Amino acid sequence: MSTTNTAGDLSRFSINQMTVKQLSMPELVAQCVELGIPGVGLWREPVAAYGLDATAKLIRDAGLTVTTLCRGGFFTAIDPAERSAALEDNRRAIDEAATLGTDTLVLVSGGLPAGSKDLHGARERIADALSELGPYAFERGVRLAIEPLHPMFASDRCVVSTLAQALDIAERFPAEQVGVTVDTYHIWWDDTAPAQIARAGASSRIHTFQLADWITPLPAGVLNGRGQIGDGAIDMREWKGYVEAAGYTGPIEVELFNDDLWARDGRELLSETAERFVEHAA
Amino acid sequence: MSTTNTAGDLSRFSINQMTVKQLSMPELVAQCVELGIPGVGLWREPVAAYGLDATAKLIRDAGLTVTTLCRGGFFTAIDPAERSAALEDNRRAIDEAATLGTDTLVLVSGGLPAGSKDLHGARERIADALSELGPYAFERGVRLAIEPLHPMFASDRCVVSTLAQALDIAERFPAEQVGVTVDTYHIWWDDTAPAQIARAGASSRIHTFQLADWITPLPAGVLNGRGQIGDGAIDMREWKGYVEAAGYTGPIEVELFNDDLWARDGRELLSETAERFVEHAA
Repeated sequence: MSTTNTAGDLSRFSINQMTVKQLSMPELVAQCVELGIPGVGLWREPVAAYGLDATAKLIRDAGLTVTTLCRGGFFTAIDPAERSAALEDNRRAIDEAATLGTDTLVLVSGGLPAGSKDLHGARERIADALSELGPYAFERGVRLAIEPLHPMFASDRCVVSTLAQALDIAERFPAEQVGVTVDTYHIWWDDTAPAQIARAGASSRIHTFQLADWITPLPAGVLNGRGQIGDGAIDMREWKGYVEAAGYTGPIEVELFNDDLWARDGRELLSETAERFVEHAA
Repeated sequence: MSTTNTAGDLSRFSINQMTVKQLSMPELVAQCVELGIPGVGLWREPVAAYGLDATAKLIRDAGLTVTTLCRGGFFTAIDPAERSAALEDNRRAIDEAATLGTDTLVLVSGGLPAGSKDLHGARERIADALSELGPYAFERGVRLAIEPLHPMFASDRCVVSTLAQALDIAERFPAEQVGVTVDTYHIWWDDTAPAQIARAGASSRIHTFQLADWITPLPAGVLNGRGQIGDGAIDMREWKGYVEAAGYTGPIEVELFNDDLWARDGRELLSETAERFVEHAA
């Protein structure tokens, strides 16, 4: 695979599909080949839209690696029927990950159920779900990667807000079943995160490493305000240094959600993102 | 002082002025007297607008207690002239606190300087500033209360994001000089915060305790999205229990920034807030 548009080492770069969601699956794959990008992180919805088997074949034929599938999770419901449906949906996500040939399913664990103020209880229900899903995933060659989300998402999206909390849950299971997602956007403010990365590395639980930059002002709803690499407050090389010191040598995914970026030409954005990766993280 | 509009114990209730910023200073004071609210937290800007001495007299004559003055801080500049100006402004804030008769100046420490990615350095500059301001405040009977702000403010408003970080700085100084602000809104997601509250209490560093609820979706800019007590995800009695177990028996301030609340009649909002305090925290 040759690097045509981007000078520099892209050997560890993976583009998370959401970053350039304006590209169709074939466009994404073609552009990755064109630019010499070896890895992609996929999302279930666009995979389903293009077709699971068709996606797997497209990616495989292009010689790309699927570094992660996003996402499983949403384990915090109290209602038994909802919990059962969530487990079933996560089994499907694990099956899809296996079909796509990735070893990592990223988990966004879920927020507080309506009316609940019980963060601790919600976190325990995540652990309960993983005790069922961990072995199921392991049998299919898939590892579950709990992603701590920034504390601003604690009520409505993910009650796991820090790497320490994620590891407190993950360590109840074998590392081959459950680890963590280290994403700079969610943890950059946390001065205890470097030590937690070392803790995660010591038990081989860094299952994926993702980059996004922190920019302000945050947009309403705060979901789609992630900054292009290099545009914000986060020193990417510093965090890359932490995961490498902890033994992580795998792919580095760039995952941005940003309305301004999504309004741009997808091919240009992908090229820019590859350049930023080289400049700030290669 | 009698409670006319609100049933229940308001003896520890303090209304932070920003919650009902649509009320003028005389309206605020009159309504507190009317409702039997014994304490107010003041802000420098409305105090300056009404006049420092006039405000002090108005509050004193009404028999109210000024529980805190908001706010000092913004210590993270690198430029020497900016740093000098910040120190001078904080000395004025301390003088104002003393004139108003409050023993607590709340500190919002400041974000990253433009272009900087160095959270650690910024936190060290806060400590530098406090080494000058702590003794100055102590001589005037004022304690400085570092407020950890939610991590979503780490880049643009306050690099101190957790109680642990705040205490790491505060403990370099005598507790009579520097302590912390415990505000539910900023720390509710943090499962290590209860232990940090105990740590703060053990050295008598809980200088004020403030309430606001966490509601979503957050508005653009995320500053003015704090929820009325009882409307969100935070169990106020749980957090009150933590500070009380740590030995804190002082005033409890309700401090809300919320465009929807500010659009309402200020007297009605103050009455509702007092009722919510009784229901959820008295």
